[in-house]
Amino acid sequence: MPLLHVTQTPGQSAEAKRELLKKLTAAYVDATGAKPASVWVTIEEVSKDDWAIGGETLTERALKPA
Amino acid sequence: MPLLHVTQTPGQSAEAKRELLKKLTAAYVDATGAKPASVWVTIEEVSKDDWAIGGETLTERALKPA
Amino acid sequence: MPLLHVTQTPGQSAEAKRELLKKLTAAYVDATGAKPASVWVTIEEVSKDDWAIGGETLTERALKPA
Amino acid sequence: MPLLHVTQTPGQSAEAKRELLKKLTAAYVDATGAKPASVWVTIEEVSKDDWAIGGETLTERALKPA
Amino acid sequence: MPLLHVTQTPGQSAEAKRELLKKLTAAYVDATGAKPASVWVTIEEVSKDDWAIGGETLTERALKPA
Amino acid sequence: MPLLHVTQTPGQSAEAKRELLKKLTAAYVDATGAKPASVWVTIEEVSKDDWAIGGETLTERALKPA
Repeated sequence: MPLLHVTQTPGQSAEAKRELLKKLTAAYVDATGAKPASVWVTIEEVSKDDWAIGGETLTERALKPA
Repeated sequence: MPLLHVTQTPGQSAEAKRELLKKLTAAYVDATGAKPASVWVTIEEVSKDDWAIGGETLTERALKPA
Repeated sequence: MPLLHVTQTPGQSAEAKRELLKKLTAAYVDATGAKPASVWVTIEEVSKDDWAIGGETLTERALKPA
Repeated sequence: MPLLHVTQTPGQSAEAKRELLKKLTAAYVDATGAKPASVWVTIEEVSKDDWAIGGETLTERALKPA
Repeated sequence: MPLLHVTQTPGQSAEAKRELLKKLTAAYVDATGAKPASVWVTIEEVSKDDWAIGGETLTERALKPA
Repeated sequence: MPLLHVTQTPGQSAEAKRELLKKLTAAYVDATGAKPASVWVTIEEVSKDDWAIGGETLTERALKPA
């Protein structure tokens, strides 16, 4: 029954995503006792040009000196 | 005023989507009496690699014997 | 696998919601051939004070002459 | 801490999106006094074939005489 | 056609929300030239117990010395 | 930068939620190497009357013999 929706920037490999989906499911099950089969997780990718923090896109922020 | 947001995997033709959007709108109107023009429906597609049930992606689950 | 998320204003009875959930599920199954058991539908209620069209809340719009 | 999620159709340039992200952030800060760095804004693009109003996709509506 | 969805913590008055909804709508119209009547904005409130940054809820973070 | 949004039914204590938020954040960090402070997690609660699987609400399903 629980839905976990992950919004992140692109760039993760299919394999790394499998790992992420497994670990998030396991963490939810561990914390709540839910049945694994009841846990749905989806990943949505938002480009760094379409994501802003403090009015600056992640692309702009990545160009600034650390 | 109502918003219906559909999250599904890719693969549906534009024509099939038109049909789906019509039928969901009609179902909402039928169940609630809302004006059709007030009903918004959007479709978001999530790849089978980005969707997990029980920690397994839909891609992995499709490879397993039924 | 499909997720249908309905965002609407409060006021619908539990019975009317059951009807809505049934009809939306049936419409999705009818339009796509999906298995009913794979269709998840959730309803989120947003107050008329928290919903604006054209900058006016649904509460403000309801007070204006038709 | 606030999250602003924009759902719109494709077609906006990266530059126009930067402008939109800045203006939405500034509007939120202006209206609430929140710290700019706390405001996250994401943009999701939904195709005109995947968006319906009154059961008609935005693509169908655009083909009809005004 | 655009949808703006704001997720924030509770505590804002109805009047302050009206102001926020107006300003976000105006900012969207200003940045894109969209018709005001086409802009939908909804506000969802998430409690500080239900929102975490770095694994700490906003409630926990508020208790820590600045 | 990543956003994790959990949709679940009500009933979890504030303490259990803190645990869930911590474990999901840790799982994301472990799987991706992201900085903990960059991980936002929000929880949205949807009542069992507002959540259907296969056209039946979770309330209706809970009343049926296992």
